[in-house]
Amino acid sequence: MLNFPQTKLIKIVHDIFCAAGASSQDASQVAEILIANHLAGHDSHGILRIPEYLQSILDGEIAIAAKPEIIQETPTSAVVKGNWALGQVVGNFATDIAIKKAREVGVCAVSVVQAAHTGRLAVFTERAAAQDVVMFMTIGTVDRPMTAPYGGAAPILGTNPMAFSIPNAQGPAVTLDFATSAIAAGKIKVAKAKHEALPPGCLLDKNGEPSTDPNDFFNGGFMVPFGEHKGYALAIIAELLSGPLVGNESYPGVTQRSGIFIFALKSSLFQPKEAYDTALQRSIQKIKDIPPAKGFTEVLLPGEPEAKMAAKRMVSGIDIPEDTWEAVKRAGLSVGVDVDQIK
Amino acid sequence: MLNFPQTKLIKIVHDIFCAAGASSQDASQVAEILIANHLAGHDSHGILRIPEYLQSILDGEIAIAAKPEIIQETPTSAVVKGNWALGQVVGNFATDIAIKKAREVGVCAVSVVQAAHTGRLAVFTERAAAQDVVMFMTIGTVDRPMTAPYGGAAPILGTNPMAFSIPNAQGPAVTLDFATSAIAAGKIKVAKAKHEALPPGCLLDKNGEPSTDPNDFFNGGFMVPFGEHKGYALAIIAELLSGPLVGNESYPGVTQRSGIFIFALKSSLFQPKEAYDTALQRSIQKIKDIPPAKGFTEVLLPGEPEAKMAAKRMVSGIDIPEDTWEAVKRAGLSVGVDVDQIK
Repeated sequence: MLNFPQTKLIKIVHDIFCAAGASSQDASQVAEILIANHLAGHDSHGILRIPEYLQSILDGEIAIAAKPEIIQETPTSAVVKGNWALGQVVGNFATDIAIKKAREVGVCAVSVVQAAHTGRLAVFTERAAAQDVVMFMTIGTVDRPMTAPYGGAAPILGTNPMAFSIPNAQGPAVTLDFATSAIAAGKIKVAKAKHEALPPGCLLDKNGEPSTDPNDFFNGGFMVPFGEHKGYALAIIAELLSGPLVGNESYPGVTQRSGIFIFALKSSLFQPKEAYDTALQRSIQKIKDIPPAKGFTEVLLPGEPEAKMAAKRMVSGIDIPEDTWEAVKRAGLSVGVDVDQIK
Repeated sequence: MLNFPQTKLIKIVHDIFCAAGASSQDASQVAEILIANHLAGHDSHGILRIPEYLQSILDGEIAIAAKPEIIQETPTSAVVKGNWALGQVVGNFATDIAIKKAREVGVCAVSVVQAAHTGRLAVFTERAAAQDVVMFMTIGTVDRPMTAPYGGAAPILGTNPMAFSIPNAQGPAVTLDFATSAIAAGKIKVAKAKHEALPPGCLLDKNGEPSTDPNDFFNGGFMVPFGEHKGYALAIIAELLSGPLVGNESYPGVTQRSGIFIFALKSSLFQPKEAYDTALQRSIQKIKDIPPAKGFTEVLLPGEPEAKMAAKRMVSGIDIPEDTWEAVKRAGLSVGVDVDQIK
C-alpha cells in the first residue's frame, strides 16, 4: 500500500486531465471531487476512475473541452445541458444553479441532461448544504441495466443512487447517500478483485438464483434493490424523476444515460436561520445521546462516518493500493504525464 | 367478517364526525380518506381509527371545529398551522396549497405544524399526482419514540413515514409510501391481535435483544429501521425535514408531534406535458415487461398493488372484522350515532 497527501493527489489528477484536454479550472474540479471521495473513505470513486474517464474521452462519452449550459430557465427551475462535459464539472454547475435559485426564491428544481459520470452524489448535496441549502439529488439507469425490479427475474434498473443533505452549522452536514441497489457496483468489483464473497441477498446469477459469488455478476447476473419493496420503490422514484421527468431522452448521446434530478430549498425557508440552527442541534443531540447497541461504540448520524474519515485522512494521507497506482501511472503516461515527476 | 359498500362506510364516518362536532365538509374529508385507505388495502388506516380519533378529541389532541390556516407565505412556500384540526383536513388543505403553488410557479415547499394524525400519506401525494404535480411528503417522530437509530440501543425515532407520487396520465400514480421503520406500528398491533410472530429483523425487546414476539413491543421494546443504515438515513432525513426544518417546536400542543414537510413540482416543469407523459409510459412499460421472478406473477410498480385492490374492493365491498365493527358502533353511540340505523 502506498500513501499520499491529498494535495499531491489533487495535483496529479489536475495535471492528467489538463493533459487530456480539460481547462485548468475543469481539471481542478475533477481533482478536488475525486480526492474528496477518497477523504470520505469512498476509494471506489477516487483516482481509480481516471483510466475509465480517459477511456470515455476516447470513446466520445466525455467531451473533455465541452461546457455545460442552461438551456431553459424560470425563477424556480432550470434545465442544464451538460454537453457531455466531465460529470463533476456538470454536477458542480447544476448544484451552483440550484443553490443560487434556492437562496433567491426559496425553492427550486433542476433537470440535468447529457452529464457524464458524476461519481458520488454527496459531494454535490454537501456543496449545497455548506451554503445553507437542503438538496436532494438522484440518478437513474446509466449504461447497462444491472438491478432487477422487486419480483422481477431480469435487470432493468441501474444502481439508482440518491443523496440528501441537511445543512448543519455546528458540524458536518447530515447526508444520506446510497445506491438503491442492495450493493454498490463498485463494491462488487472490489469483492471480485479480492476473491471475497458478497453478503447474501444482494445478487442473483444469470438464472435468477441467489448468489454470493461476485463473478456471477459479471457473467450475466444482476443485483436486487436493498430493503425489498421499499428500496425498489426508491429505485423507481429515482428512475422516473431522473428519466421521464427531467426529459433525458430528448438529449441522447453515444451511451444511454439517465438525467439527474435535483430539488433544493434554503434551510431558512420557514423560519429564521438561527431558529433552524437551534432546533437542528436539539434534534441531533437527542439522537446522538442514544446509547450504542452491542457491537457499536456510538450512534452516528448519516454522513458522520465520512466526516470522521476525512478528518483522519487529512492528517494521515490517503492509502492507494499498488495496482491502482500502476493503473494511474499508465493512464498518466497515455496523455504524456509522468506522475512520478509530480511533487 | 362483515362486508360493506364504500358508500355506506363513508356515510357512517361522516355522520360520526359530524356528531362529534365537525362541519359536514370536514367530516366528509375524513370519511373519504379513511375509506380510500380501506380501498387501497390498508385497513390499519381505516375505520378502526375512529375510536382513537374520538378519544383524541376528548384529550384535546384534536380540535374538532378548528380550521387550518396559512400563517406565512411566499410564492414558492407556505407555513400551514393546522390548529390541531382533524389531520386529514389539514393534510388536504396543505396539499391543495402545494398543488396550487407548484402549478403556478413550478416548484414549492410547504411546512405543516400542529397537524393531528393524518394517516396514510399516499392519499395526499396521490391527490397532487391527480393534478399533474409530483409530491414528496414526510413526517417525523410523533408521541413516544418507538424506533432505535442504527447502532443504537434505545428508541428515539417514530415510524417516520415518507411518500412520493409521480403523476401517470395512463394509469394509477406511481407511489412510494412506507414507514422507514422495519415494520409499520399498525402491523405490530395486528400481529399481536392475531397472536402471530413478526418477521425477524424488525423488533428488539426492552433489553435490546432481537425478538419476533409483538408483545415485546408493548413491553418496552422498539423497532429498528428497515434496510439497516440506508433505512436509518431515510428516517433521519424525515426527522430533520419535518422537525427542525419546518419549525414544529415553535407551535406546541398537548402531545409532542413532528410537523410535516412537503415538496412539490409540476410534472411539466422541464418539458411539455405530452413529452413527459410519453416518456413516462416508455419507462413504465420497460419495467413492466420484465418477466416475474419465482413466486411472483408480474412485476408491479409501487402503488400498483393498492390501485388493483381499490378496483377490486369498489366492486366487492370492504370486509370489516366483527371486533372492529363493534368498536365503531360503540364509538358512534358515544356521540349519539347508531350506525346500524345508517343506510
